[in-house]
Amino acid sequence: MEIYLIRHGIAVDSTADLADADRWLTKQGIKKTLQVASSLRRLDLEFDIILASPLLRAQQTADLLISKDLSAKQEIHADLAPHGSLDSWIHWLQDYERTHPHAQRLALVGHEPCLSTWAEMLLFNQVFHRLHLKKAGIIALDWPTATHPIGNCQLNWLIPPKCWL
Amino acid sequence: MEIYLIRHGIAVDSTADLADADRWLTKQGIKKTLQVASSLRRLDLEFDIILASPLLRAQQTADLLISKDLSAKQEIHADLAPHGSLDSWIHWLQDYERTHPHAQRLALVGHEPCLSTWAEMLLFNQVFHRLHLKKAGIIALDWPTATHPIGNCQLNWLIPPKCWL
Repeated sequence: MEIYLIRHGIAVDSTADLADADRWLTKQGIKKTLQVASSLRRLDLEFDIILASPLLRAQQTADLLISKDLSAKQEIHADLAPHGSLDSWIHWLQDYERTHPHAQRLALVGHEPCLSTWAEMLLFNQVFHRLHLKKAGIIALDWPTATHPIGNCQLNWLIPPKCWL
Repeated sequence: MEIYLIRHGIAVDSTADLADADRWLTKQGIKKTLQVASSLRRLDLEFDIILASPLLRAQQTADLLISKDLSAKQEIHADLAPHGSLDSWIHWLQDYERTHPHAQRLALVGHEPCLSTWAEMLLFNQVFHRLHLKKAGIIALDWPTATHPIGNCQLNWLIPPKCWL
């Protein structure tokens, strides 16, 4: 199975009147995220499901991916929010794998520094803070079928949005 | 400084009559490598120098990058060949940095599993064999200025050729 960790696009700053969870994507953030989504579509990628953090900017990012037909299914997962639990969404994924044995490709939309930290745990079972994931950037991993994913994934992509021309 | 580790394109297999060092790029290998080179050019990337392994397939890959105006300078470095020494080309780069204080971006063309292993040493000072670098794929790193690069680089890109559409 392939797992695509996608960081939300550029969002407005939070203010005294605007909670972090309610920050929306800027026009530039929407434009760049749509460019990334179109490029993924040109690669013929399709996700069995897009799982997204409940925060508005992640939900909007998932909506933009859906608008380019990258998936027919979308769900919210509370543990993709900042300070969410890696173990919790790994369990969700393992359940999904069991109940959807033909699933090939899942997208998870979330935040930094969680996504790159989780990726390092999945790849190395250690955190180095050495992966630089831009907004609307993507980390693609191969997820092992026979072993626990922590320390056993493979890194296939780390792609910032500007590289999708 | 940014360092781009670029794996040579698809080459013919070696045979009893064809030594590994003399394997040339296939038509498909040339086509894909040129697509990657054109995409890098569209990003306005320019390398201060392209350093390549002496093996024919790496030399041809460097020539294709040069043909798309990605650099005006090309050199052979013996330690970019398989079984070359990471320390040796790190010393070369440190000398280059000293004598070219305005250098911004260097490309190194070589082979697997060396390139991804060296990248892991530069990122983590450990080897995990967790980076999947395809032929004509690119690993881009931020190279630190004030400290030794081993364990202190940052991963900016890991991009397989198919993602440059």
